[in-house]
Amino acid sequence: MAGSTYGTAFKITTFGESHGVGLGVIIDGCPAGIDFDEEFIQGELARRKPGQSKIVTQRKEEDGVQVLSGVFEGKTTGTPIGMVIYNKDQRSRDYGHIFDKFRPSHADYTFHAKYGMRDYRGGGRSSARETAARVAAGAVAQLYLRTLGVDIKTYVSQVGSIAVGKTHEELDLSLIESNPVRCPDPETAALMEKEILSVRKDGDTIGGLVTCVIKGVPAGWGEPVFDKLHAELGKAILSINACKGFEYGSGFAGVTLRGSQHNDAFYTDENGTVKTRTNRSGGIQGGISNGENIYFRAAFKSVATIIIDQDSVNEAGEDVTVSGKGRHDPCVLPRAVAIVDNMAALVLADMSLRQRSARLS
Amino acid sequence: MAGSTYGTAFKITTFGESHGVGLGVIIDGCPAGIDFDEEFIQGELARRKPGQSKIVTQRKEEDGVQVLSGVFEGKTTGTPIGMVIYNKDQRSRDYGHIFDKFRPSHADYTFHAKYGMRDYRGGGRSSARETAARVAAGAVAQLYLRTLGVDIKTYVSQVGSIAVGKTHEELDLSLIESNPVRCPDPETAALMEKEILSVRKDGDTIGGLVTCVIKGVPAGWGEPVFDKLHAELGKAILSINACKGFEYGSGFAGVTLRGSQHNDAFYTDENGTVKTRTNRSGGIQGGISNGENIYFRAAFKSVATIIIDQDSVNEAGEDVTVSGKGRHDPCVLPRAVAIVDNMAALVLADMSLRQRSARLS
Amino acid sequence: MAGSTYGTAFKITTFGESHGVGLGVIIDGCPAGIDFDEEFIQGELARRKPGQSKIVTQRKEEDGVQVLSGVFEGKTTGTPIGMVIYNKDQRSRDYGHIFDKFRPSHADYTFHAKYGMRDYRGGGRSSARETAARVAAGAVAQLYLRTLGVDIKTYVSQVGSIAVGKTHEELDLSLIESNPVRCPDPETAALMEKEILSVRKDGDTIGGLVTCVIKGVPAGWGEPVFDKLHAELGKAILSINACKGFEYGSGFAGVTLRGSQHNDAFYTDENGTVKTRTNRSGGIQGGISNGENIYFRAAFKSVATIIIDQDSVNEAGEDVTVSGKGRHDPCVLPRAVAIVDNMAALVLADMSLRQRSARLS
Amino acid sequence: MAGSTYGTAFKITTFGESHGVGLGVIIDGCPAGIDFDEEFIQGELARRKPGQSKIVTQRKEEDGVQVLSGVFEGKTTGTPIGMVIYNKDQRSRDYGHIFDKFRPSHADYTFHAKYGMRDYRGGGRSSARETAARVAAGAVAQLYLRTLGVDIKTYVSQVGSIAVGKTHEELDLSLIESNPVRCPDPETAALMEKEILSVRKDGDTIGGLVTCVIKGVPAGWGEPVFDKLHAELGKAILSINACKGFEYGSGFAGVTLRGSQHNDAFYTDENGTVKTRTNRSGGIQGGISNGENIYFRAAFKSVATIIIDQDSVNEAGEDVTVSGKGRHDPCVLPRAVAIVDNMAALVLADMSLRQRSARLS
Repeated sequence: MAGSTYGTAFKITTFGESHGVGLGVIIDGCPAGIDFDEEFIQGELARRKPGQSKIVTQRKEEDGVQVLSGVFEGKTTGTPIGMVIYNKDQRSRDYGHIFDKFRPSHADYTFHAKYGMRDYRGGGRSSARETAARVAAGAVAQLYLRTLGVDIKTYVSQVGSIAVGKTHEELDLSLIESNPVRCPDPETAALMEKEILSVRKDGDTIGGLVTCVIKGVPAGWGEPVFDKLHAELGKAILSINACKGFEYGSGFAGVTLRGSQHNDAFYTDENGTVKTRTNRSGGIQGGISNGENIYFRAAFKSVATIIIDQDSVNEAGEDVTVSGKGRHDPCVLPRAVAIVDNMAALVLADMSLRQRSARLS
Repeated sequence: MAGSTYGTAFKITTFGESHGVGLGVIIDGCPAGIDFDEEFIQGELARRKPGQSKIVTQRKEEDGVQVLSGVFEGKTTGTPIGMVIYNKDQRSRDYGHIFDKFRPSHADYTFHAKYGMRDYRGGGRSSARETAARVAAGAVAQLYLRTLGVDIKTYVSQVGSIAVGKTHEELDLSLIESNPVRCPDPETAALMEKEILSVRKDGDTIGGLVTCVIKGVPAGWGEPVFDKLHAELGKAILSINACKGFEYGSGFAGVTLRGSQHNDAFYTDENGTVKTRTNRSGGIQGGISNGENIYFRAAFKSVATIIIDQDSVNEAGEDVTVSGKGRHDPCVLPRAVAIVDNMAALVLADMSLRQRSARLS
Repeated sequence: MAGSTYGTAFKITTFGESHGVGLGVIIDGCPAGIDFDEEFIQGELARRKPGQSKIVTQRKEEDGVQVLSGVFEGKTTGTPIGMVIYNKDQRSRDYGHIFDKFRPSHADYTFHAKYGMRDYRGGGRSSARETAARVAAGAVAQLYLRTLGVDIKTYVSQVGSIAVGKTHEELDLSLIESNPVRCPDPETAALMEKEILSVRKDGDTIGGLVTCVIKGVPAGWGEPVFDKLHAELGKAILSINACKGFEYGSGFAGVTLRGSQHNDAFYTDENGTVKTRTNRSGGIQGGISNGENIYFRAAFKSVATIIIDQDSVNEAGEDVTVSGKGRHDPCVLPRAVAIVDNMAALVLADMSLRQRSARLS
Repeated sequence: MAGSTYGTAFKITTFGESHGVGLGVIIDGCPAGIDFDEEFIQGELARRKPGQSKIVTQRKEEDGVQVLSGVFEGKTTGTPIGMVIYNKDQRSRDYGHIFDKFRPSHADYTFHAKYGMRDYRGGGRSSARETAARVAAGAVAQLYLRTLGVDIKTYVSQVGSIAVGKTHEELDLSLIESNPVRCPDPETAALMEKEILSVRKDGDTIGGLVTCVIKGVPAGWGEPVFDKLHAELGKAILSINACKGFEYGSGFAGVTLRGSQHNDAFYTDENGTVKTRTNRSGGIQGGISNGENIYFRAAFKSVATIIIDQDSVNEAGEDVTVSGKGRHDPCVLPRAVAIVDNMAALVLADMSLRQRSARLS
């Protein structure tokens, strides 16, 4: 029982391998009547694509998306939106030297164990290239969420040991796209960029953190008891390649606070809206949005593909050396930002539609 | 579109409110032929139930489970297993003083916003009492997993600022049940217990961390690309009340490691099994188990119910004071251990069955 | 991967065996705010229960439903509604004589083949007693549909070879409950009753047809392309024990009509509503309701349990004789009416909620 | 909540409109290791495509399928199989004259009511052209089922009033493809062909029946209680455009039989296999296959598109005349055969995989 579908009401199913013919996605459940801004979708893909700056992989992938269905006269029709991205820069020959080797901390061995076979070209289905399909779908989710006033902003908050020293409230999130790292703190961004270039020079890779801030979500989204809003966000973000951890609101650090310190007191603002004075809840209480800003952080490990030689085994169980080559990411964080934005959008679009059934209308 | 179902192949649906008639669960998809050890199930419920020691709430709930279906002559039949736990200690009168107040950092306000109404008795559906139903179901999942040699052990690794100084490999996990905190490091357990009693004396609450270690999972469990094993574990654990974060393997701390430091080298052991020399992957690569031990950590915030007076508002938006009373948990961690064990079991049972469809048999 | 769940937005999961402790259902996804009329639910169960007249089985089952959750202060809360019906009249001893025999045209053999074991008491999970849980859930669906003006009426239109000679438009559907057969044509009902009593006297059973007419469904319910409204109705009705066929609108007989004879011409009525002059479409076009009355027919075979001796085999493959005894239905049709009404209600409630996501609101 | 997905374990999602860029399907859950016979898939599409004989529409659609993913070195990989069929013969101009008219007994009005808009080109998503994607997916299901020895054969058993006089056991099913009607009774096929040509000459259309016979399904497939094998077959077949009815085994006609006449007696054959002497059950008992041949019949109404002028209304509610033109099917039955074969294959492949979880292995 496969797992290439995400969502219940706004439901996406992706397909495609790194070096196959192409990859794509079907969105089933997108409401009719949304202005379909194809340029925006292509722009989100551009934020994820390789080769966009000197601190990411220099592979050239155009990632041009072709819309096959579900749009008519510029609007969504309510029927499935099919989108495909053809692989242009396949270069299968790059991978012949590792076809029977299990690359360390990749999914080569586990795919082999699971299916009894695998597409060894660039990781096949396990490649992060799959996320291009998610980004295309998430961009459509964003088009829907915009009609509701929801805004999602992710930024790089740590690279290796270099962390942004400010909270997300203290940052100017409009600066995210002002540098190739996608960190809205320009000084820290410069340090991060330097670090990434240094790592790259060593043929090595490095991890980091992203922070995501979501504004404009009304109170009431999220479904008790398993499909809590933060549980779905957690699953969606953890399903992104290289993600090792997820926390929202006060997160891991918050466990040292006592209840009397951690609780967010309610008050009524001048418009009669119920608000909280603090937001350690991260905009979510009991798994349901409370109208405050939602925020979470996610950890991404260093990319497994390195240029440095590594010990491993092959399918026959023999000792082999895996030698890196090709054009790989020294740090996925700058590109992960686009993926996190759009995965969060998929979760929220789904929850928005699910909320429509909560009560007698 | 509601969210009280978890799992795809081993599927559970829970129902019930804190102070309603009862709560329970249907398991649909449990394989036929499993020896149904009702005593074990009741034992898992006992590990979760209130009143089991002086460091948890003193509420008395028997949590006796009644099996209604799906078991015949001591074995599971393959048809749905219905289980119900009647609420004995309802004491609805305890809650009259807060029926229209939104308790800080509870789900009162968000349920009200979502449904336009709510069962205000003890949090209703949002109460952690719901997890009793999950534990009953998870215990059945454990009975199934035992037949495959899978063993799950969760322990308390931090309370407030008091953390276990050893890794899970350095600990003797058979000591988990040797103290009421459920920490296998006796010295640290004593400090944690003292801290919890101190917090309780102040009418306050405190958070902490659990660590879960899963042994015996074969390579191949987990479904690309959204239903990765760790993504499902993350969702399941994050859906537990008060959980604020999830990380597996190297987690958040691992992001500072370079690829050359983080990658787990493969080798073939004396039995011809492919193994990794280190396990920063946490037993999962590309979302699929690799045969190594799986481990993760989860953060639980301090319980929202405190005895200390708090500012809040009521349904009319007026300022009110919420005064705590009753018998509440100063720290959920010791009881959370049983919930985490059993939620992990639900994820693994599901993934085990899903794996059966992966290839031509 | 089990199949005890029906519905996507208004989702039910049933459990329970004929002679186990009890059976029941969880409804997950019922909107908050519906007046919960428990008497109506009990009334629907009374229409399904055995022993209600001399033409159905004389088994005595009270079928009293206990509501465990999801209702507060007389209204649905939006959280799961758990309901249980305890088995009172178990008499397990009745079934000892057949515990290893495969009764002809029952599910004994197929359950054994599927699960490697079975609960042989009265058919266990395969017993039509399971439909009591569906009826309870369907009655809640009816409470929801009432708020939208939807009305469902099923009647017996044929018993053996005795068929009602009038169309559903020519009948007075308020007469359905005026006789024990539940046929709104009193003369035909009398003949049917006589036939059933004659069959019963012979220790035999007989089949028949029901017709269902649904009024008040607005245009727009039903989901292209697999979950068409009539496809979901078909699945739901075919899933009822003994059902062998389903047709809607012009059905099987309509295939002899040419397109020019079959098509339903549109016109606009005095209120500006688009209507059709004829209704061979059965109120559904392209799988979506068009605002006209929905109608369908379903075929139910004769009950497999007869008093007459039959040849069969046992689990060891040896020839045996199955001798009927006990109190069984000579004809399920009068009781099937209640099941069909409520299964149709489940389909429509689900489709109503699903429609809420179809477009930008 | 959309409905373009079918299946639980062998899960397909289709997309595409009649006159959009293209249509296609993702299969998620196809086991790894199946020999991927692309020629067979293309052959199944050829059996469905228009223009294949003089008794079907003369539209030219190549329906060449492009496989985008999920196949490597000639075998399925276990990851999603994406397939796309580009629309070549769009001719959108054909549809300008009806863009705001509701064609009688089409889905124009209901799509408009549901989504507030519609793609009016050739019916858009409601067009039977969507079934090409199902056929491609079903052909892959057939490749899987072949490895298990399952064989599916559908034929035309009635056109208008011209019916095959023999049972499926009396026919030589290898003759199905021997004539353009796809009726294995050559004399009747000739009469049917004559009838279809006559109807076509009148600018009219006609309906009919298909019969499907499935051999080689082992005992044990099908899931109690809602996802019974025949209920899923019913839903799948009823979801095909123009289908109005479904019956299996003894069907509608069987309701006149008494239990003593209808029951299928069990015996043990020379190989020790449990068999039934008759097969009124249609190979399914209690919703689970019993090892006998499965058979069902389905009714298809006359195609709604006729050349003859018809009264209707437009979006403004004004009276209009719909004048047929273009190249349409006088009778869908010959092409429906391929769709029914492949929808049945999808149901069976799904049930086969679901059965893998039924018991301890």
